[in-house]
Amino acid sequence: MSQVKLGVFKCGNIATAPLLDLLPDELADRKDLIVRSVSTGSKMDVEAVDDAIDKLFDFAPDLVLFISPNTTAPGPAKAREAFSKRRIPTVVFTDGPGKKVKEHMKEQGLGYLIILGDPLIGARKEFLDPVEMAIFNSNVIKILATTGVFRLIFQEIDKLVFSIKNGKELSLPRMVVDTTHIRDSTDFRNPYAKAKAMAAYELLKKVAEINLQGCFIEKDKEKYIPLVACAHEIVQASAKLAEEAREIEKYTDSLLRTPHGKDGRLKTKTRLMLRPEVADKTAELAE
Amino acid sequence: MSQVKLGVFKCGNIATAPLLDLLPDELADRKDLIVRSVSTGSKMDVEAVDDAIDKLFDFAPDLVLFISPNTTAPGPAKAREAFSKRRIPTVVFTDGPGKKVKEHMKEQGLGYLIILGDPLIGARKEFLDPVEMAIFNSNVIKILATTGVFRLIFQEIDKLVFSIKNGKELSLPRMVVDTTHIRDSTDFRNPYAKAKAMAAYELLKKVAEINLQGCFIEKDKEKYIPLVACAHEIVQASAKLAEEAREIEKYTDSLLRTPHGKDGRLKTKTRLMLRPEVADKTAELAE
Amino acid sequence: MSQVKLGVFKCGNIATAPLLDLLPDELADRKDLIVRSVSTGSKMDVEAVDDAIDKLFDFAPDLVLFISPNTTAPGPAKAREAFSKRRIPTVVFTDGPGKKVKEHMKEQGLGYLIILGDPLIGARKEFLDPVEMAIFNSNVIKILATTGVFRLIFQEIDKLVFSIKNGKELSLPRMVVDTTHIRDSTDFRNPYAKAKAMAAYELLKKVAEINLQGCFIEKDKEKYIPLVACAHEIVQASAKLAEEAREIEKYTDSLLRTPHGKDGRLKTKTRLMLRPEVADKTAELAE
Amino acid sequence: MSQVKLGVFKCGNIATAPLLDLLPDELADRKDLIVRSVSTGSKMDVEAVDDAIDKLFDFAPDLVLFISPNTTAPGPAKAREAFSKRRIPTVVFTDGPGKKVKEHMKEQGLGYLIILGDPLIGARKEFLDPVEMAIFNSNVIKILATTGVFRLIFQEIDKLVFSIKNGKELSLPRMVVDTTHIRDSTDFRNPYAKAKAMAAYELLKKVAEINLQGCFIEKDKEKYIPLVACAHEIVQASAKLAEEAREIEKYTDSLLRTPHGKDGRLKTKTRLMLRPEVADKTAELAE
Amino acid sequence: MSQVKLGVFKCGNIATAPLLDLLPDELADRKDLIVRSVSTGSKMDVEAVDDAIDKLFDFAPDLVLFISPNTTAPGPAKAREAFSKRRIPTVVFTDGPGKKVKEHMKEQGLGYLIILGDPLIGARKEFLDPVEMAIFNSNVIKILATTGVFRLIFQEIDKLVFSIKNGKELSLPRMVVDTTHIRDSTDFRNPYAKAKAMAAYELLKKVAEINLQGCFIEKDKEKYIPLVACAHEIVQASAKLAEEAREIEKYTDSLLRTPHGKDGRLKTKTRLMLRPEVADKTAELAE
Amino acid sequence: MSQVKLGVFKCGNIATAPLLDLLPDELADRKDLIVRSVSTGSKMDVEAVDDAIDKLFDFAPDLVLFISPNTTAPGPAKAREAFSKRRIPTVVFTDGPGKKVKEHMKEQGLGYLIILGDPLIGARKEFLDPVEMAIFNSNVIKILATTGVFRLIFQEIDKLVFSIKNGKELSLPRMVVDTTHIRDSTDFRNPYAKAKAMAAYELLKKVAEINLQGCFIEKDKEKYIPLVACAHEIVQASAKLAEEAREIEKYTDSLLRTPHGKDGRLKTKTRLMLRPEVADKTAELAE
Repeated sequence: MSQVKLGVFKCGNIATAPLLDLLPDELADRKDLIVRSVSTGSKMDVEAVDDAIDKLFDFAPDLVLFISPNTTAPGPAKAREAFSKRRIPTVVFTDGPGKKVKEHMKEQGLGYLIILGDPLIGARKEFLDPVEMAIFNSNVIKILATTGVFRLIFQEIDKLVFSIKNGKELSLPRMVVDTTHIRDSTDFRNPYAKAKAMAAYELLKKVAEINLQGCFIEKDKEKYIPLVACAHEIVQASAKLAEEAREIEKYTDSLLRTPHGKDGRLKTKTRLMLRPEVADKTAELAE
Repeated sequence: MSQVKLGVFKCGNIATAPLLDLLPDELADRKDLIVRSVSTGSKMDVEAVDDAIDKLFDFAPDLVLFISPNTTAPGPAKAREAFSKRRIPTVVFTDGPGKKVKEHMKEQGLGYLIILGDPLIGARKEFLDPVEMAIFNSNVIKILATTGVFRLIFQEIDKLVFSIKNGKELSLPRMVVDTTHIRDSTDFRNPYAKAKAMAAYELLKKVAEINLQGCFIEKDKEKYIPLVACAHEIVQASAKLAEEAREIEKYTDSLLRTPHGKDGRLKTKTRLMLRPEVADKTAELAE
Repeated sequence: MSQVKLGVFKCGNIATAPLLDLLPDELADRKDLIVRSVSTGSKMDVEAVDDAIDKLFDFAPDLVLFISPNTTAPGPAKAREAFSKRRIPTVVFTDGPGKKVKEHMKEQGLGYLIILGDPLIGARKEFLDPVEMAIFNSNVIKILATTGVFRLIFQEIDKLVFSIKNGKELSLPRMVVDTTHIRDSTDFRNPYAKAKAMAAYELLKKVAEINLQGCFIEKDKEKYIPLVACAHEIVQASAKLAEEAREIEKYTDSLLRTPHGKDGRLKTKTRLMLRPEVADKTAELAE
Repeated sequence: MSQVKLGVFKCGNIATAPLLDLLPDELADRKDLIVRSVSTGSKMDVEAVDDAIDKLFDFAPDLVLFISPNTTAPGPAKAREAFSKRRIPTVVFTDGPGKKVKEHMKEQGLGYLIILGDPLIGARKEFLDPVEMAIFNSNVIKILATTGVFRLIFQEIDKLVFSIKNGKELSLPRMVVDTTHIRDSTDFRNPYAKAKAMAAYELLKKVAEINLQGCFIEKDKEKYIPLVACAHEIVQASAKLAEEAREIEKYTDSLLRTPHGKDGRLKTKTRLMLRPEVADKTAELAE
Repeated sequence: MSQVKLGVFKCGNIATAPLLDLLPDELADRKDLIVRSVSTGSKMDVEAVDDAIDKLFDFAPDLVLFISPNTTAPGPAKAREAFSKRRIPTVVFTDGPGKKVKEHMKEQGLGYLIILGDPLIGARKEFLDPVEMAIFNSNVIKILATTGVFRLIFQEIDKLVFSIKNGKELSLPRMVVDTTHIRDSTDFRNPYAKAKAMAAYELLKKVAEINLQGCFIEKDKEKYIPLVACAHEIVQASAKLAEEAREIEKYTDSLLRTPHGKDGRLKTKTRLMLRPEVADKTAELAE
Repeated sequence: MSQVKLGVFKCGNIATAPLLDLLPDELADRKDLIVRSVSTGSKMDVEAVDDAIDKLFDFAPDLVLFISPNTTAPGPAKAREAFSKRRIPTVVFTDGPGKKVKEHMKEQGLGYLIILGDPLIGARKEFLDPVEMAIFNSNVIKILATTGVFRLIFQEIDKLVFSIKNGKELSLPRMVVDTTHIRDSTDFRNPYAKAKAMAAYELLKKVAEINLQGCFIEKDKEKYIPLVACAHEIVQASAKLAEEAREIEKYTDSLLRTPHGKDGRLKTKTRLMLRPEVADKTAELAE
């Protein structure tokens, strides 16, 4: 089987980033996929991008996933430009502010997934230490996974990998991931599980809103500390809603699981004790 | 201020990995630190290591953090050899199986943090899909953060960065991170919070034990599916214990926070509404 | 002691309404206050207002509290006009849409409290039955009580009653009740309790947003049912946050209680087993 | 369609009162019903009743719902007398002490619903402030709604409205609402949900018992404060049981919903995503 | 040191029984105490008592604890008679029905502790199997332990053992253990913890009431199954309240612990990390 | 019907002990079974055994259940010897250390059930008082009941009683009760309920491990207090997992119940409102 080389470029961090390169090959046994990532850590300045991006190109990726917060900031903007120029198929993963440059990204020939529910962290020195940062990310990761946003993400990647493997023309995804994706999905069998998942996602958007105010608008610590603390409490409440949604599906043994086969095809199952079946939706989805 | 370039090499995944390069600079504002990471995704074969490790060297790091599961496997072993040869100060972050090569790593001139509570995932195709994988990692991240293991980790990194910045001789850490680290720490003010944190960590070690059996010993799906499912239930229970521990400290407003200053020095605080103070423990710790 | 006659006019329902006439005299033992309410039930059409408002005037109230959803709708608008004409001191209690007529209400000589966290209910026949309606109201009531919004409300009423009793000039309140009121209040002793209370209130505003979409924008039941169900799940999550906030204060026996004395003066206490003290803040607040 | 005018008279407060006038028309769209309420606030003295009751008569109601605590107290007794004299069909809604005058109410020609699970509040000045009062009511409202007591109530009202609309003879309900109503109802599909609902209701009766002792029997604050605090803790525990009961039904998507149609007929449904069906049980029930 | 021989006679089961003989020597290291128990299992017929009681006398106990449900039933009555005749100091531990023979027990020269909160189990064959029985007992044990009832019990035993050891005259306890014992105790530092503990105990009394109806009054399974199921749900809710009470004390590190010293004296402590101090309250209490 | 006399000998305590003599006759109505127990309380020294064991023999039991912690300790070893000599069919119930003498017990002609999940208690005087002891036991009892271990136990006893009653040859059970018994059982209908039950049991084994270290290996109170406190937190977490497992089965009304008939045969049922059916598995199991 021919192999596709997936290059992941991370600059700065949103909660989708830490596991993005693991989602397409969760069991580390796909024969059709090679993954390489390069990251600039939490910083996202232009110098960091310049220094790091070439290393990704050195890997000669067939497909690039580029993920950063605020893709309009100078560093990420520089990176987008570079990917656009190199003409390697690239999908930009980013958060809310990305909406402002949707048209521009299309012109740049880039695909994008703008994840409205991947919120700004409460980045205030009185509040955020590495432990709080990690807990915040852990909560958002759990919510994005549980609500189905991560499934949406790796299915989009799967489609592109499938097309490349089969020499088909690529259709880069361009979407703003919002609550409607959860609503219109059939992943949840129980409608209350779905409602809770939607609720969890809506709360993440609320967190983005509050942290924006807490980090950039309020200047007085008496005002911004309660705000960012409040935002992180909402994340925790959202994580509980997401857990509840998942538990509901477990209670009737209808939890959907979609592991990747060794050949990269997505399998699907619900009853825990049964084997996953190849439901070649990947091919279908790639049409 | 002179800058230290930190190179992070990830091959395969344990739960400490996804955020490892973010822990030392959680607010992305340290003037004394540059971070670059290279990763092979979820795979950890020798070819992947060979292909990726040079890119890290291209960054000319002053200090390397090398993280992988089972450091005795061929890929990670190859990587350790390479770091050992290059004589760049390197700390190996890995899970339980690393205990078997402690002496060898010392001979290789490598430091190490063997995190017993960073357990093997329930890697069975009937159970693990990308969503389950992400949730597992999110839970373990939360536990390792909350119990203080992540604080231990970034403090060890901080000490090395401090020594490099100040031209001091490096003393690479060599430790097996176990429940005793939580017990002997003063991070928790409330002894029951500490007991719950210790309990959470002990549960992670139990998960490692069960998943080992579920992934490598049992061959019949009727036997291994319940085992890995059981292990992931324990992770969830452990995460709840960890959350409880943190809530206790919040209830008396005594939660410890230790953000990094822009100059890289660790600050410390407990009362939420107060500012963090520079407690130059970094220097002290580096002695 | 002279007595003040408080007239409450309710037309339609928001969650502040059902208990509004009980808040100022929770023990039913105030000597200085008489309360009479007239309500049109859940409907708020012009005919209902016309029919019912005269009965309130028949009571010859010294002060009127007029509460309804969307004060710009024809019925409530008609009522405001009537109160404005009669020149009885009147405070309008209403929800978010009231912001659009703030200036107009001022011109009408009316006071107002616009409670952004008193959200529209998920009024869809596939979802809302009397039981769901009651549960929604019960949750919002709990949240508004716990977060301190109800305390803000009855303190404003107390001030007016005090002024009338003492022949002072009335200064009608005109405020938009938002999260900042919780943030700037000193009711919570623990900053994390306050953060959770703020979070609870923010969630109510989110509910208002979603139910607006679910009730008025989406036309397809496949779309609006999940939305209103999701909104009510958020209310439930918000109620849990509010309960947590209150429990925190109980855990350190610092929960604030402010009962009314028989003479109408507010008393205050925290330690459960101690008596409330007269803290004549009412007079003070009325200045 | 002919319209029925429903007059609601509230004097003092029990938890069924605040939403009583909203239950029959939860969506505010019934064409066959007009609702008007008059209330004396939290007080229930004879003067208040005298002053307020005439305003209700001014509305010329076809049917009166009269709700108060302890219907044997002078104020409520006066009101019952007035309703009895006027010969307007009247149903008395009240709490436990009402059992003592069941026979008398029958002689007065009044219907009654004596709700044993609508307990006395912990009315002690060291404990009860407006916030505690509101939380208590919110919890009891939730429990009475969730356990099906509110459904019982509005179905009884529906039957009377139906009979009036159709010129049938009225059969006023006379019942003591106890746990048996929940036990014998078919509203819960899951027997454990029903058991939890029954448990919740039994706890409310226990609360009534304890608050009676705390409010009227114990004279020493060292004795009565813990009692009323204990009673309110039980209410909170009861609310959690009620919530659990409802969640169980949601977990299998079998939660019963019975919205009113615009023509006043009760509709019924269980699967969340389906439409309610007209199950003309109202007519049937009215036989 | 002289040793006291404690004989425990169990016939039938209430939740205080299974651990009664363990409470006085929880660490199995008291030098001053020997314990022997004889039990007739779950049955409590006269034959069983006759057969078993002699074995207890064979142990020649200095003090007898006799525990059974309903001490007025023939078997337990027979046993009381036997203990009375033998003139060995005996304390009867039993549940609510014991109140009817308080005077008689006094005349028999027996002490007694009638524990109102040790409720009848839901003994219906459609509901109670050994697993449900064990869970019920586990919950009641937890509640009686947490609320302080078990501490009351072993302190009463301690006093008697102390008196015997020191040749003092015995004063047999005669008390009906009710919520007032929790209210008047100083074991809980936090008044809300105490309120929750009282609530938990009150719920147990409610369980006794409901199970009485479910086991002996209702004859139709459609009626009694929901009742006993409801009672066991209340026990579970009560156990949660008790756990909350204990957690509150842990949150401020003020949980009282009173281990027995090797010499039998009660020690006392609150801060977890400190040693217990000998607070010779035993001697004092025995006065 | 012929009756079997079951003698239960308890020396020291493990959590299976307190209810062991109640499990075979939970409703106290079996016609075929007589139970007598003798216990030495919490102590298990040789003298206690010598003194007490004869009283059990005096009952002339047909079958003996002998339960103690660490069966290799001198007291329990003495007791085993005595039972072996007397040639009364005897089953030893004990905890983990029993594994060391499995062969020896077989040679002694004794049956055994070694329950790995019946853990050592945190027996440190700074931590364990009678209340903590009781709570620990209550939690372990709940877990062993809920996970099905108690069902395994009474079914083994049932088989022996059946064989004795019917004059069949006895086949004494010899098993080490581990998580595999839960995994291979069909008691749980929902696979996630089973996974949670397995998780709960695994945690108990972890508790045994930690308490061993806390009680016998660590000598410094700074070290052992946190360990035993941590172990008891794990027990609490385990109990919650067990409760969740049971709730899952309740949510779909599939909870298994297996009461004993009056004739000793096991009945079985799942739907709560239905009667248990005689499923003469006892006979079958005894083959």
